[in-house]
Amino acid sequence: MEGTKGTLSGRAEPPASPILADWAQKMKRSVLRQMLAVVARPGILSFAGGLPAPELFPTADYAQAAAHVLATDAKALQYGPPFQPLKEHIVHLMAQRGVQCSAEQVFLTTGAQQALDILTRLLLNPGGQMILEKMAYPGIQQVIAPFQPRVWTVPTDLDTGLDVEAVASLLEEGVRPAFLYVITEAHNPLGVSLSRPKRWRLLELAAEYGVPIVEDDAYGFLRYEVGHEPPLRALDDQWVFYVGSFSKILAPALRLGWLVAPESLVNKLTVIKEAEDLESSAFTQRTVAAYLDAGHLLDHLTCLRREYARRRDTMLCALEQFFPQGSRWTRPAAGMFIWVELPGVVDTAELLKVALEQEQVAFIPGYAFAVNGQAAANCLRLNFSNATPERIVDGLERLGNVVKREA
Amino acid sequence: MEGTKGTLSGRAEPPASPILADWAQKMKRSVLRQMLAVVARPGILSFAGGLPAPELFPTADYAQAAAHVLATDAKALQYGPPFQPLKEHIVHLMAQRGVQCSAEQVFLTTGAQQALDILTRLLLNPGGQMILEKMAYPGIQQVIAPFQPRVWTVPTDLDTGLDVEAVASLLEEGVRPAFLYVITEAHNPLGVSLSRPKRWRLLELAAEYGVPIVEDDAYGFLRYEVGHEPPLRALDDQWVFYVGSFSKILAPALRLGWLVAPESLVNKLTVIKEAEDLESSAFTQRTVAAYLDAGHLLDHLTCLRREYARRRDTMLCALEQFFPQGSRWTRPAAGMFIWVELPGVVDTAELLKVALEQEQVAFIPGYAFAVNGQAAANCLRLNFSNATPERIVDGLERLGNVVKREA
Repeated sequence: MEGTKGTLSGRAEPPASPILADWAQKMKRSVLRQMLAVVARPGILSFAGGLPAPELFPTADYAQAAAHVLATDAKALQYGPPFQPLKEHIVHLMAQRGVQCSAEQVFLTTGAQQALDILTRLLLNPGGQMILEKMAYPGIQQVIAPFQPRVWTVPTDLDTGLDVEAVASLLEEGVRPAFLYVITEAHNPLGVSLSRPKRWRLLELAAEYGVPIVEDDAYGFLRYEVGHEPPLRALDDQWVFYVGSFSKILAPALRLGWLVAPESLVNKLTVIKEAEDLESSAFTQRTVAAYLDAGHLLDHLTCLRREYARRRDTMLCALEQFFPQGSRWTRPAAGMFIWVELPGVVDTAELLKVALEQEQVAFIPGYAFAVNGQAAANCLRLNFSNATPERIVDGLERLGNVVKREA
Repeated sequence: MEGTKGTLSGRAEPPASPILADWAQKMKRSVLRQMLAVVARPGILSFAGGLPAPELFPTADYAQAAAHVLATDAKALQYGPPFQPLKEHIVHLMAQRGVQCSAEQVFLTTGAQQALDILTRLLLNPGGQMILEKMAYPGIQQVIAPFQPRVWTVPTDLDTGLDVEAVASLLEEGVRPAFLYVITEAHNPLGVSLSRPKRWRLLELAAEYGVPIVEDDAYGFLRYEVGHEPPLRALDDQWVFYVGSFSKILAPALRLGWLVAPESLVNKLTVIKEAEDLESSAFTQRTVAAYLDAGHLLDHLTCLRREYARRRDTMLCALEQFFPQGSRWTRPAAGMFIWVELPGVVDTAELLKVALEQEQVAFIPGYAFAVNGQAAANCLRLNFSNATPERIVDGLERLGNVVKREA
């Protein structure tokens, strides 16, 4: 990229190629997404991605719903407004999470990622302020990047979640983030769920300082323990924007998610969404509604929870068996990820290279999630939803061997 | 929305509800999209939307492709990288438009609107500069709005398109737009295609001043006259970002479009797209590729062109027959829209109310497209793709009667 570097007949010489926006010139690819491309090579046993188990997709039922919609619904392939029956299904889904809301508060999005993007446009000014956990979902880091915000970081306790008192201190000092981003159930990458007292304290802070909360609940329906804490949105409908997704409970390729937001803001959300992609696919909306009409979801969720719980338990046992003394890991009650801290001085970015080369096993090194260059050299994220229990045992043994040799 | 309005124990009182980003507080709904919601009432004969004819959707072939993909392709419902065979199909499609490009230059998007949004993020700084036609597609106005750019306007000739010399003057005066947005084939809302000399002059200006061009070719495959001017991207691969879409040639509910962009920028486009919606639906990508594999598209396009040409001709005749002396309209060689200027002093916004009430006929008043409050009080946009010829004759007669009574 050349800037203006001289004059030619009275005006600056033109650039040799298109000039990008300032932030775009500096932007970096997400380390996570880059790695996912690398480890997708055939023959790699990968615990890297956040992929659901494809053999559990309700493919036949979905195909039936799609065929039915195309055969009977003349509006399936046309432009159209958000599909009201789908919103009503989501109201019922939300009730299963303990959330009372109306169809008018449900806003459909092209996946949960778009919901985060829309909310960021709604709430964050260029050069605004943000508070993030030291280890944070790369997707939230990517949506705020174009706004070049000033970002403060707070720690996360691996048993109780986000350090809410660290947030309180920053707010007390005058930091005013555009919003607080929280995964209350099954943090990505850490696997921890937010404790009940912290949930209440966070809502107290939101109201006290007037700071909205974006609650990312992509994993909320995948809980493997009895008893659960309610989502923040179940406790407060004024400060909490709830983000939900069909990616983890039906299939990622639907690219369908939703927001629960104050009804008074739905018009503004609509304007932002129209700029981004006009509307989400009418065909997908109507097919998912038809799938839900058929009543298969509850059984499907039961099946997912049973199998993913088994895979989680298998991975926890395998960690115990194959990883070196002094290793620590989270015991997620929900979701798809386990966070592992290795003992001693070890660089998991280097470890990944060795694991790929010698054992064809992949994971994500902790630094891929680090905000503001936080250190996480001895940490890694493991996904337990995508591999069968047999492959989890095999892969963890191979990975454990690498760790023991290299650490 | 309350600001900070006092102090409470040493700090400002919190707001009563979430504080929105500055631009979001001021944002307005697109007049066009609001109207589309209004005129979608049952019983309205609408020439308002930009809707393709639903009876021409290749529903059976698409259903077959979808069923085939779900039955045979285990990756159809999973997360996945852009589907290479679809990119290769698009390379062949582009060749039909006279554009030589490689699969590595094809970037898949969630509809053409997302392509515009991604390019705007790539190229436009907050508070940057833009040049738009006085009447412009609302979707481009919506994508630039969050950046609060300074916008200059230029006229459009209804026979030859964008006033390229007006652009030249602004550039000469030192205006440096982040990009030039052009619909070279079948302008929305004006229906005009850019003349050959203007195409070359525009490319000359782009290179001379180093200003990239975003060429929106959503209607380029729907051309009804023999002989066509090549898209700008066929003439220049350095300054032109080409935007294509399956919405008008297959179906809008696919939400699938593409960019042809310099390969060196694809990584940056990927980062921006990941922030917006991670990726476009693998299922849709693979189904469209399967539909294209089956080889139906050429026949389908022939059928679309034949029927839309008939509808256009019917509407042009009906305008001649039913509209008052002194009315003028464009004669589009492609696309979906005719732009009408009524004689005398008339406010088409008021006219719409009367037409809806008395004749249940809808159109879009010109002001819905006006940039910077440009006047277009006596203008309106008519869509000819969505209604059958019989309904076009009926509707234009009713609308002509309203115009004659009110104008």
